[in-house]
Amino acid sequence: MTTCDCKNTCTPTPVFSQIGKPKGNSIIQDILALASRPEVISFGGGLPSPEGFPLEAVKEAADWVIDNQGRRALQYSAVEGVMELRTALAHWETENGVPTKPEEVLVCSGSQQGLDMIARLFLDPGSKMLVESPTYLGALQAFQLSQPEFVELPCDEQGLNPAAMGEECRGARLAYVMPTFQNPTGRSIDVERRKLLAEKAREYDFWILEDNPYGQIYYDEKPALSMRAFAPERTITLNTMSKVLAPGFRLGYFMAPKIIIDALSEMKTAIDLHTATYTQLITARCLELDLMKKHLPYVRGIYKQHAECMLNALETYLPKHPQIKWTHPKGGMFIWLELPENVDATELLKACIAAEVPVAFVPGFAFYANHPKHNTARLSFVTVPEEKIVAGVKTIAETLQKFL
Amino acid sequence: MTTCDCKNTCTPTPVFSQIGKPKGNSIIQDILALASRPEVISFGGGLPSPEGFPLEAVKEAADWVIDNQGRRALQYSAVEGVMELRTALAHWETENGVPTKPEEVLVCSGSQQGLDMIARLFLDPGSKMLVESPTYLGALQAFQLSQPEFVELPCDEQGLNPAAMGEECRGARLAYVMPTFQNPTGRSIDVERRKLLAEKAREYDFWILEDNPYGQIYYDEKPALSMRAFAPERTITLNTMSKVLAPGFRLGYFMAPKIIIDALSEMKTAIDLHTATYTQLITARCLELDLMKKHLPYVRGIYKQHAECMLNALETYLPKHPQIKWTHPKGGMFIWLELPENVDATELLKACIAAEVPVAFVPGFAFYANHPKHNTARLSFVTVPEEKIVAGVKTIAETLQKFL
Repeated sequence: MTTCDCKNTCTPTPVFSQIGKPKGNSIIQDILALASRPEVISFGGGLPSPEGFPLEAVKEAADWVIDNQGRRALQYSAVEGVMELRTALAHWETENGVPTKPEEVLVCSGSQQGLDMIARLFLDPGSKMLVESPTYLGALQAFQLSQPEFVELPCDEQGLNPAAMGEECRGARLAYVMPTFQNPTGRSIDVERRKLLAEKAREYDFWILEDNPYGQIYYDEKPALSMRAFAPERTITLNTMSKVLAPGFRLGYFMAPKIIIDALSEMKTAIDLHTATYTQLITARCLELDLMKKHLPYVRGIYKQHAECMLNALETYLPKHPQIKWTHPKGGMFIWLELPENVDATELLKACIAAEVPVAFVPGFAFYANHPKHNTARLSFVTVPEEKIVAGVKTIAETLQKFL
Repeated sequence: MTTCDCKNTCTPTPVFSQIGKPKGNSIIQDILALASRPEVISFGGGLPSPEGFPLEAVKEAADWVIDNQGRRALQYSAVEGVMELRTALAHWETENGVPTKPEEVLVCSGSQQGLDMIARLFLDPGSKMLVESPTYLGALQAFQLSQPEFVELPCDEQGLNPAAMGEECRGARLAYVMPTFQNPTGRSIDVERRKLLAEKAREYDFWILEDNPYGQIYYDEKPALSMRAFAPERTITLNTMSKVLAPGFRLGYFMAPKIIIDALSEMKTAIDLHTATYTQLITARCLELDLMKKHLPYVRGIYKQHAECMLNALETYLPKHPQIKWTHPKGGMFIWLELPENVDATELLKACIAAEVPVAFVPGFAFYANHPKHNTARLSFVTVPEEKIVAGVKTIAETLQKFL
């Protein structure tokens, strides 16, 4: 109780719920706050490159929507999403190799909301949930609100290794995987591993939540098909417009069997009624005008160029050492760096931020549900100009030398 | 287990979480599905009138945003909301009588999301939560996902009656109230009751979640100030652009002490990162150009005219009976109808849908957390043309006659 003289009108300390209790700033937030000074070269972010945003196309589509669908665009709409958008997305996914019906699509407010919704739909406190090791940090944050017991799946240099999945999977309701250009490693699993993952899901009777934000951001070759091609009956795929159109719209979408779409729809009614009608109609218009086909090659080109630049710089500058290695992604936004076991990437980060040409990245420990590897780091390259990529990698190389 | 020959590739029955288990269609959804035929006059919806949408202003603002802030509008943005919008909203609330700083504002994806966020922030399964009787159906749906124990607060013909609040409030973390033009009753509580509610909140040490979607939709006189004027230290006010600008944007906002804003911000990071940047910037632009002051008198005029039309029709056509009465709202979108105790409004609704001039409304039982009164109904008038309001009320009157 407060003991001041305010007649009891001081702000009382709220009794938060168990999941609502603020965790306070994490180590990562503390460090990245230090790194937010403009002179710091940041390999930390997961933002897409704003160079890739189709401003004129969005403006034209937005004007068209107000002129032709204005009252509808500003009104409430169906919880599952507007039918034009569900149809356009189903058509797009079908064209990309996995037959999809509009009624198997549900629109959500970015895939981050999708992660939270699936966790709430499947997980009671203590439910077993399978995740890759490492896995996407933001997904762990969303899932933690549902208080699952995480089980880390076996992963190797080719990504998730379903052949090594065994009894630890029994009793799990759900596995969260990112088979294509994974965040944080950039790794993709091949067709054989996808098939085997489908078999394991059937054997141990769990659902697959496939997060696929980067599938369209391949540099040269199209990646293997979505898990919906291998285990359509038990895969929920989450996709997003954030990397191919605009994150500022907060538009994601599920593709799943109808029993899941129906349950998600009931949940979405309770948690936010529906995603914004206006941005859905704009996005539908962009898709109908085939913006993706015109726009994606340009986005892929930017990302590929930046990835190559960073890979070259790593090859050129990083110390030659048998325990220093990094992934060579064929799409997406991330390179995963592994350091000698005695090097703590958080300490390396602190030193890099204090360097003459300061640089930041995300220490890898944050991407593990249970057993962090502290000698890892995630490097993102897409928003950094090429000369700064080179300068930043030089700083990492010089600083790392002192840790060896 | 399935026993078919599909090699185990049938869609398996998912094991949903306790809160995720679909409840199936509610009685209300079943009935309202019947009522969705175009010939049915619907007093059921809570939609604002699309006549009131400022299409031209939105189009101009949207073009301005792409021309002047395009790359930013399509990019990720701050979890609490874009600063222009938080500043414009703080300014607007301050002008309306409750001093508010931008850092006390947090933007969310419609107030439905706000209800879910507060429930998750405060409630563990079984936590005591105070609600009005009746209260907003959509809020109950959101809160139920956090599995609280609801306690109904004493209400009378003047709305919530804090004088009668007592020991049942002890141990509650939160009270959910709509003091102004309440959904479903249309009632507002006066300044005395607001002061007393503040005192009770201090006495029993609970937080107040004030839902205020209709405060600006007064017909003649401005209503009493928000609870933030009476208990600023423990009130969380939830407001929305849905009724004053456009529900299709899904834009709501919290105003609360910083300790709550910080906790909400941490939660929002995990559940959807942030609300769409683009619609936030468009809304900020509309507010900066003083759209509210130009636009709101027009919206209030439409709503007042429809309310008067329905009140006149009820007075003219409903059977004279001491137990038939209805509220006379001074703002908002709803009239609450009370019927003789032996009349079940759900049965009345079925008969009204089957009438020659069919009409639908929402039976009142759905608005009670614990102790439904079946002889009540919510009537909404804003999207119905005046001649149809009269025709619909005639149907209710004639049908009701048969139940007396």
